[in-house]
Amino acid sequence: MKSFNQITEIISTEIEKLDWNKEPRGLYEPIGYVLSMGGKRIRPALTLMACNLFSDNIIQAIKPALGIEVFHNFTLLHDDIIDRADMRRGKPTVHKKWNENTAILSGDVMQIAAYQLIAETPVAYLKPVLDLFSKTAAQICEGQQYDVEFERIDSVEAEDYLKMIRLKTAVLLGCALKTGAITGGAEEQDAQYLYDFGINLGMAFQLKDDMLDVYGNETTFGKKIGGDILCNKKTFLLISALKVAKDEIKDELNACLHVSYQQPDQKINAVTAIYNLLEVKKICEDKMFYFYNKAIAILDKVSVPDNNKQVLIKLAEKLMWRED
Amino acid sequence: MKSFNQITEIISTEIEKLDWNKEPRGLYEPIGYVLSMGGKRIRPALTLMACNLFSDNIIQAIKPALGIEVFHNFTLLHDDIIDRADMRRGKPTVHKKWNENTAILSGDVMQIAAYQLIAETPVAYLKPVLDLFSKTAAQICEGQQYDVEFERIDSVEAEDYLKMIRLKTAVLLGCALKTGAITGGAEEQDAQYLYDFGINLGMAFQLKDDMLDVYGNETTFGKKIGGDILCNKKTFLLISALKVAKDEIKDELNACLHVSYQQPDQKINAVTAIYNLLEVKKICEDKMFYFYNKAIAILDKVSVPDNNKQVLIKLAEKLMWRED
Repeated sequence: MKSFNQITEIISTEIEKLDWNKEPRGLYEPIGYVLSMGGKRIRPALTLMACNLFSDNIIQAIKPALGIEVFHNFTLLHDDIIDRADMRRGKPTVHKKWNENTAILSGDVMQIAAYQLIAETPVAYLKPVLDLFSKTAAQICEGQQYDVEFERIDSVEAEDYLKMIRLKTAVLLGCALKTGAITGGAEEQDAQYLYDFGINLGMAFQLKDDMLDVYGNETTFGKKIGGDILCNKKTFLLISALKVAKDEIKDELNACLHVSYQQPDQKINAVTAIYNLLEVKKICEDKMFYFYNKAIAILDKVSVPDNNKQVLIKLAEKLMWRED
Repeated sequence: MKSFNQITEIISTEIEKLDWNKEPRGLYEPIGYVLSMGGKRIRPALTLMACNLFSDNIIQAIKPALGIEVFHNFTLLHDDIIDRADMRRGKPTVHKKWNENTAILSGDVMQIAAYQLIAETPVAYLKPVLDLFSKTAAQICEGQQYDVEFERIDSVEAEDYLKMIRLKTAVLLGCALKTGAITGGAEEQDAQYLYDFGINLGMAFQLKDDMLDVYGNETTFGKKIGGDILCNKKTFLLISALKVAKDEIKDELNACLHVSYQQPDQKINAVTAIYNLLEVKKICEDKMFYFYNKAIAILDKVSVPDNNKQVLIKLAEKLMWRED
């Protein structure tokens, strides 16, 4: 079994090997830029780890693992245009550094590049991996569409929010894990358990993200705290707050959402104070651990020695206690 | 052998069967809208015809044929955002009818849908078809990037223009034909001849398009005549005119490109008059027939009875003499 550090080492090396030094430069340069920004590389790590549960030959899973990481970064590129986000991981986004047309077209070719990597899956596993990948990719677009639509709706139910993050975030973790399992030669049932493990881990991961956006440390988190609050993003925290708030607290929260503040910090502080009063961080944390525990329970069912699952459990724990 | 009409009939029926009535509506509705606009469906027709040269079982080629058509329409959708085009086939473009974010995201999921259709290629042919498709898709993005870059350059060489239209237009015709040949069980050499036939046909097709934009009939062409002239698009006509024009004609043409006119028709008439004087339509037509004749000569080499090639020759002729 490869250790966590060995896996991340392999991934960085392989990502650096990808060649974006192609013509026309204006099309390919932004792809190299986006991928050089870093990120946690969780998805390809999950693919390699899942493969390693069933096979020592993790080289089988590298190309699809890279395809999933390239696809993930493509979605960030296009989402940043849609969300009008100027910064990502402390650097200007592609549509800011270049322009919107470049961001659209480089994104398109990046999606194709992701498919080209997926197509290098060992041929015996190509069809199921390709089908899972396409299904997942479409679901991620659906999730992003719901996310955009939620901005224009006054109230979003927790259930709908959870459905949205399942599509936008969780399915790719499930896909990454199942892809690894398939290329490792796992039985269908085990591959499915790993998918379900990924879904639940992904749900917990996104809820953690919602909390970090309010309660994180700006230095370690790498972006401004309170961004979700400033744009009235209907995160699990806000949805929960609107649900449990009564009477004057409810009025106060609604006022925070509709009044315009002179300083952004005033709004962030006001909303955070209400969150604290209503203890919505606890509600969100409980939900996060609900999914996390479900994930671990599903992983338990996978028919490989418990000892071999430790690297996945360690990564899952890391994601729950992360500060970035 | 299926006739031209039988082939187009199959394609329309199959395109109508594609189900875009899915949730979220805001994501999938624009795809149905784009595909219902029609178009000549040349690419899937080429795929089925090429398959039919080698096999009676053209059903083998239908899914990849549809994938290529969906992909083609996806490129139009994103290109229309990039080119700020408001109308397409007499109807408002997606980013006008909905908005830009919808056009980006629906386009993304449309590209995935194209891959899902490609993935339904009979498994024995999946890998070569998928690889050819991805390579072609990336080339089309490269072509679009060059097209956008040419807008910002003062002078474009004919050679560079031809390279651009090869990428933006011709390779997809080559891909459509080769995909049909592969799924029909053709030998590699015949499949390659069909690819090369498609490249040359595609070059001729785009040069015809350049001419229709100036010399076409507005009613049959379906869009305003002179659009390329109005935006100083560096088509083969303009590049040729700038090359052959001398002295005062050259100054006059340059003035047309840089002066602002009160009425669009004034500019169109002035530039067209110079084109007529310089006989650039003839230069363009000669180039078109050069590629067309090359295409037919390559098709001649394909090792199937000449009689069976008639349907492809008929379609190629139709494309050369079309008025839309």
